[in-house]
Formats: sequence, C-alpha cells, structure tokens
Amino acid sequence: MSVKWVPLLLVIQLSCYFSSGRCGKVLVWPTEYSHWINIKTILDELIQRGHEVTVLTSAASVLINPNMASAIKFEVYPTSFNKEEIEISFMSWINEWTRKSKESPWKHFPEIQKIFWEYSDYLERLCKDVVYNKKLMMKLQESRFDVILADAVGPCGKPTTLSETMGKAEIWLIRTYWDFDFPRPFLPHFDFVGGLHCKPARPLPKEMEEFVQSSGKHGIVVFTLGSMVRNITEEKARMIASALAQIPQKVLWRFDGKKPDTLGSNTRLYKWLPQNDLLGHPKTKAFITHGGTNGIYEAIYHGIPLVGIPLFADQPDNIAHMKTKGAAVSLNIDTMTSTDLLNALKTVINDPFYKENAMRLSAIHHDQPVKPLDRAVFWIEFIMRHKGAKHLRPASHDLTWYQYYSLDVIGFLLACVAIVTFVIIKCCLFSYKKLFKRGKKKKRE
Amino acid sequence: MSVKWVPLLLVIQLSCYFSSGRCGKVLVWPTEYSHWINIKTILDELIQRGHEVTVLTSAASVLINPNMASAIKFEVYPTSFNKEEIEISFMSWINEWTRKSKESPWKHFPEIQKIFWEYSDYLERLCKDVVYNKKLMMKLQESRFDVILADAVGPCGKPTTLSETMGKAEIWLIRTYWDFDFPRPFLPHFDFVGGLHCKPARPLPKEMEEFVQSSGKHGIVVFTLGSMVRNITEEKARMIASALAQIPQKVLWRFDGKKPDTLGSNTRLYKWLPQNDLLGHPKTKAFITHGGTNGIYEAIYHGIPLVGIPLFADQPDNIAHMKTKGAAVSLNIDTMTSTDLLNALKTVINDPFYKENAMRLSAIHHDQPVKPLDRAVFWIEFIMRHKGAKHLRPASHDLTWYQYYSLDVIGFLLACVAIVTFVIIKCCLFSYKKLFKRGKKKKRE
Repeated sequence: MSVKWVPLLLVIQLSCYFSSGRCGKVLVWPTEYSHWINIKTILDELIQRGHEVTVLTSAASVLINPNMASAIKFEVYPTSFNKEEIEISFMSWINEWTRKSKESPWKHFPEIQKIFWEYSDYLERLCKDVVYNKKLMMKLQESRFDVILADAVGPCGKPTTLSETMGKAEIWLIRTYWDFDFPRPFLPHFDFVGGLHCKPARPLPKEMEEFVQSSGKHGIVVFTLGSMVRNITEEKARMIASALAQIPQKVLWRFDGKKPDTLGSNTRLYKWLPQNDLLGHPKTKAFITHGGTNGIYEAIYHGIPLVGIPLFADQPDNIAHMKTKGAAVSLNIDTMTSTDLLNALKTVINDPFYKENAMRLSAIHHDQPVKPLDRAVFWIEFIMRHKGAKHLRPASHDLTWYQYYSLDVIGFLLACVAIVTFVIIKCCLFSYKKLFKRGKKKKRE
Repeated sequence: MSVKWVPLLLVIQLSCYFSSGRCGKVLVWPTEYSHWINIKTILDELIQRGHEVTVLTSAASVLINPNMASAIKFEVYPTSFNKEEIEISFMSWINEWTRKSKESPWKHFPEIQKIFWEYSDYLERLCKDVVYNKKLMMKLQESRFDVILADAVGPCGKPTTLSETMGKAEIWLIRTYWDFDFPRPFLPHFDFVGGLHCKPARPLPKEMEEFVQSSGKHGIVVFTLGSMVRNITEEKARMIASALAQIPQKVLWRFDGKKPDTLGSNTRLYKWLPQNDLLGHPKTKAFITHGGTNGIYEAIYHGIPLVGIPLFADQPDNIAHMKTKGAAVSLNIDTMTSTDLLNALKTVINDPFYKENAMRLSAIHHDQPVKPLDRAVFWIEFIMRHKGAKHLRPASHDLTWYQYYSLDVIGFLLACVAIVTFVIIKCCLFSYKKLFKRGKKKKRE
C-alpha cells in the first residue's frame, strides 16, 4: 500500500457572471493543520489583490479560526462533530500511523487501512453536513462564486463520485517544485508551486534573538516536529535532549511536554517557534524536522541542511527526497540512539557537502521566472478571467475506461484479424474439399 | 510514416568559466529559412541583454547573412557546397514533398524517405565541414562559450550518435504553446515558447496603408505561402486569383510569379509582405496561409481566422490543429477549386464562430505569467548561471534500453517465478516418487 499524502490543491471553475478581469469571488474548501497554513498564504494574497475570499468551515474546525483578524469571510456550517472529538481523532490517527509506518506497511496493512477508512468517514460526515444543508447550499449558490479553491486531500461534491469531482479541476496546484521533486512527466494543467508560503526572515522576538546571538560562531539548531505532533514519550525526549546537550550549537526546540532532565544548558524549549524567521537567520546551521512539506520548503528557501525524523504520511518520502539530493541525513525515531542523533547533527553541520547541496537547492528555488505564490494566484485569476482553462484539459477525462486503454481499437483490430483468419481458413477448406472431390471423381473415372 | 518537422530548439550547456550572472557567451547552431527567422528573435533579445552571441554558419548559407547590420558575430566556415546548390536542393525537396504529402504518405513512402536521406546527407556534409575543421574547432574551444543554442532540426556533434547529442540538451524550447497544441504529458525540461517572435504591429509602408484603408468596412485578406514557397503553377495562380477577385475585401498577396490574367482589381501582388504588421492591422479579416508555425502564431497573436492551404512537413498537422480549435478552414491545394477557396474565405470572414475562436486563442496566448520570448531567454540564462539544469534531467537518459523498459526487473521476477515453479515441481515429483515407492513396498509386504 502506497501511503502518500496527496499534496495537491485543485481549482474548480464555477459558471458565474464575472464583470471585471481584476476582482472575483473565491470560495475555499480547506482542510486542517499544515494544509490550512499553506493555503492561507494564497488567500491572503488574493485578498491583497482585491478579491473576495469566503472560507467554508465547520463549527468544529481545529485550526481554522473564523474570528481571526483578517479580511477573509468565513461561512461556518453546523456539524454533528465537536472540536475536541476531531482533534482526538486526528491525534489518534497520527499516533497510530506514526507507529505503523516505521515498520513494513505490508505488515500493518489492515491497521493503516482502518485509519484511512476512519478519515474517509470523517470527511464524508463533514461533506454531508454541507451538501445536505439546503439553506447553506442555497446561500452559496446565490453568492455566485467565480471559482472554488479546494484542497484535494479532503474531497467533497453536490451527490457525485470522487473521480467526477477530480475531473472537474481546471488546474492542479502541486505543493512541490523541481528543487525537491524528481523530474517526471506531467500534464499542462499542473503547476508546481512548492514553497509558495516562503518569505524572507523577519526579526526574532528580543529574548530569542539574544539567545541566538549568544551561540557565537557555532550558531544554532532549530528543532520542531510540525503542527500536529506536540508530544513524544518522556524516554524519547530524554534521549534527544542528551544528544542535543553534546553539540556546541545552541538549540531551539519546539516541545510541549515535561522538561527532560537531560536537557543541556544550550537547549531551550518553546511551545511555538517562528520557524521561517529562525531558518532564515544567518546563525542557523541545521534543522531537525519531521519532514512536512512546509518546513522542508522553508529549509530549501533559506538553504539549511536537514536532520530528518519522519513520522507518517508523506514525511518518510519527503526526507528520502532530501537525502537523495544530498541535503539531509535521515533517522528512524523508533530505533535511533542519542549517538545517532549526535552524529547526524555533526555530519550535516560540519561536512560542507550538505550545506553546499542545500544552497544549490536554494539557488534553484530562487531562480524562477515567476515566484510560486504569484503563479498560484495567476492560475486562480486565469480561471476566473477565462471561466476555466478548457484548453489545458486532457481528452482522457472524456474517455471511458476501455477507450482510455484503447481496448475498443485493440478489440476492433483483433476482430478484423479474426474475421480475415476465419475467411482464409474457410476458403482453404472449401478449395481443399473441391480439389479432394475432383481427385476422387478423376480416380473413379 | 509520420512526416512531422521537429519544431524544437535544444540548449546544451558547455563547461566553461562564467564570471558574472548577467553576461555570457552564446554559440548558435542554426538552420535555414523559417527556423532562422524564429531563432533570430531570441538572439536579438540576448544581444539586448548584453550577451555575446556567435552564429556558426556555412559560407553557402541561403538566408543567414553574415553581413547583416547586427551585433551578432558570425563564424563562417568554408564548405564544399555553394549557395545555389543548397537553394536548389531545398526547393526540389519541398516541391517533391508538397506533391507527395497530399496523397497517402504510405503510397509515397520510398520517395519521401529519399527526401529525408538527401536532407540527412546534406546535414552530415555540413556537420563534417565543422567538426573536421581543426582550426575552427580549436578556435571555438578557445572561445569558452557558456552555452550552445542548437536547432534540433539540423543536429550535429564532436564524432557521436544522434541519441547522445539529443541527451545532452539541458532544456528543450518547443515552438508551440497550449493555445495551439493539445494537452499531453511532458517533462519539466521542456518549455513551450510558441509565438516568441510575435509583437504588436508597426505602421505599414505609406502605399500599403492607403491600399488597406481603401478597403473600407470590408477590410482586407492577407495571403502568403511562407519563406520557402515563392511560386505556384500559372494554372493554380489563375484559379486562386479568380476566387480572390470575387470577394468584397481587398487582398494583399505575396507572389513572385507571372501576374495571373484573372487577377481582380481588389488584389495586389507583392514580392514580400510585412506579415506581422498586416495581421495586426485592425482592417485584417482573414489570413490565407500554408500553415508554417511562425505565420500561425502571428495569426493567433492578433486573433485572425485562417484559410489553410498546407503544403508539406508539419503544415498539414498545424492546419488540422487550427481547424480543430475552430479558427481555420482547410483546403487541399491539388484538388481545390476557385469556388472552394471563395467559400472558405466567405466562411471564415462572415461566420462569427471563426473570429470568436481566433480571439479566444489570442486571449489565451496573451494571458501568460511570462511572455514566451522572456521564458526562452530565461532558460538560456539559467543554463549559463547554473552551468546546466541537472535537476530537470530525467533519469531515463542514464538508463540502458532494457532498464528503460524495465526488462531487467521483469526478467528477474520471471526468473524468480521460474525457479519457484521448478522447485515446487521437483518437490512434488520427489514426494510422489517416495509415496509411490512406499506404496509398492507395502503391497509387496
């Protein structure tokens, strides 16, 4: 089973009157956690350019806060879920998945499949709360949006199939780029906008800046395991803290658990870190990360080598990419020792190979004719301006499965061959019989 | 046989010291006629941006004039060809190909194959004149170019194979875009820069502008058959002229032959036309074209519907594209009558369907985040800045043919299956024999 988080956004065009080429109405169907953090960058830019952005979110959303100070409008729909219930479900899926994905996925197929079924049920319930809410649907229809920006990791549709919903996407915005990804064929309605959320570092809070500056020539190490994982076991925390205590760098660790007793004086714990600002700080030497796409792209943007401790979903795959590109060392959270972490940190900090590769990826990332965020916004605006992007739509969407695999053509050709063979055999048999009869007659004569 | 002109440019990176990110040394390996007209747009832009551009051309070149007023440097190499010889060869290939490609390509396979062999011999002789010219090769090597811009329709290499030369391309610049082309998968080291030569129309010469203005509300029709075809038979010219005489529009016809006696007072003949300036003129209603890529893109840029009279190479395919997009009517030069041409012109001028589609393609063409010419130049500069684009290189280039088709993997798996099957059969036979012997023994007892 290929356990791969789909890192996609799909843009679906709605039929709607669109008066000026500059300003449109955007409906957003987001998902939770890092996906929301990523898509919000696009929404803020759309707002900046004068578009009206409405986010459809449930009353039980974990990270999407309708009361945030923003020009984004929120259309909050009631749901039978409550926030705690959703949060507990996500945490249990992640803990389970993290445990299972370290070992062979084949071995744990039923357990991982169960997680997917539960996630699928959660999505379906949320989706039903929208599409069966007549009042809400009426209101949305009357709003005459120009485009829907939907996160494909949480698909939902007006009663339909997944394949039909996917086929309606005018443009797919992919959360990677060729600095991170390996070259492979793609269709022209795909654009790779990985790193769209990255920006130059802003100044750090005063206390943090002082701590960072106190590192001197050794610099600092930044350590987080993402927006979803806040805790690790006490034992693991002790092991990690003792490794961190042995390096000459200062360490900023995002950690929400009990302070490990092995914590060195060079390490500080924070409940939250300004990750991008830290990765862009000139003193930063390495980044210890779970390998989420957002963090990896901030590291690429700022040219920081990685120590990867992948947990679940696309994270093992992401770290494998960065390892192949020569910008990361990978560790297994279940089997790694204090020495492993220490050696990994020493390697990426002291061996110039890793820094050079990180800087090469950074150079590639920065050398694009149009920035990823501008390309993402360009395509959303293009869909609004032209009421779709039909010229990029592959004909395969309009084929049946037997047409797609050319089975109709192959079938026809095989039928032709069969008919010709049949006719030839019949002719041969007929001629043979004729000759045979004539031969008999002659003999009789 | 798929008769398709390869509309590609390939950018090959040379290992060479490159001091600043802004200014490089570009070596160009061009081909003749429309391909030269197209690539020259890129060279002019490279010169504008301060790069040093050297064009490698033979002393017998037809259209590439080393004495032109330009900052482009020309490295002219001696050749055993003379200009007249090359021109006559090209004209004879084109006439032959035009005659043959109208009928079934299968019927004329040997004749069309002969044209390709002759063209291939011509290329090989030219290429040998370069690579075996030791003095020239030494001079080129000492020049330490940063990049080679080569037209893939005339491949040449330092003794090598075609496949090896092609595999060295860092970037492929394709002469189409998705306004004209159908969506299909492509690799990330391909960029579609079709229409890079298009620009807003400049004012027409005074006499021509007066003639155009005299068309009043009916407007004008522009008619050319490209840079390679200057003559058609007298009979064809009479037939065409009599059709043109019957439309209310004024016609500007690029024609170098004897004036047809059926020529109407609404039609003027010119040895050369400012094609882009005419297609961009507000009075232009239709374009009669052979379907070369350059002309088609000027029509798309300015939103002008086409009457296509394709002759050879990619022209039938190009016109088929424009017909499918609803912006062209196609005619067969061998079988068309005066009435056919008249009806085709009336259709594309009077049926709003064709103008609307031409305008839609034009809107798509103009709505790109970066203009095609800027993208072409961006990639050439990128190759110089980064000494290549290795991150876009597909792994397939480094695979053998049996690896490419996974035959090694399939072979290994089949071998595993064969061994397992063999072992199972042997075990079964062995057990059966044992049982059989025991059975016999028991019977004997």
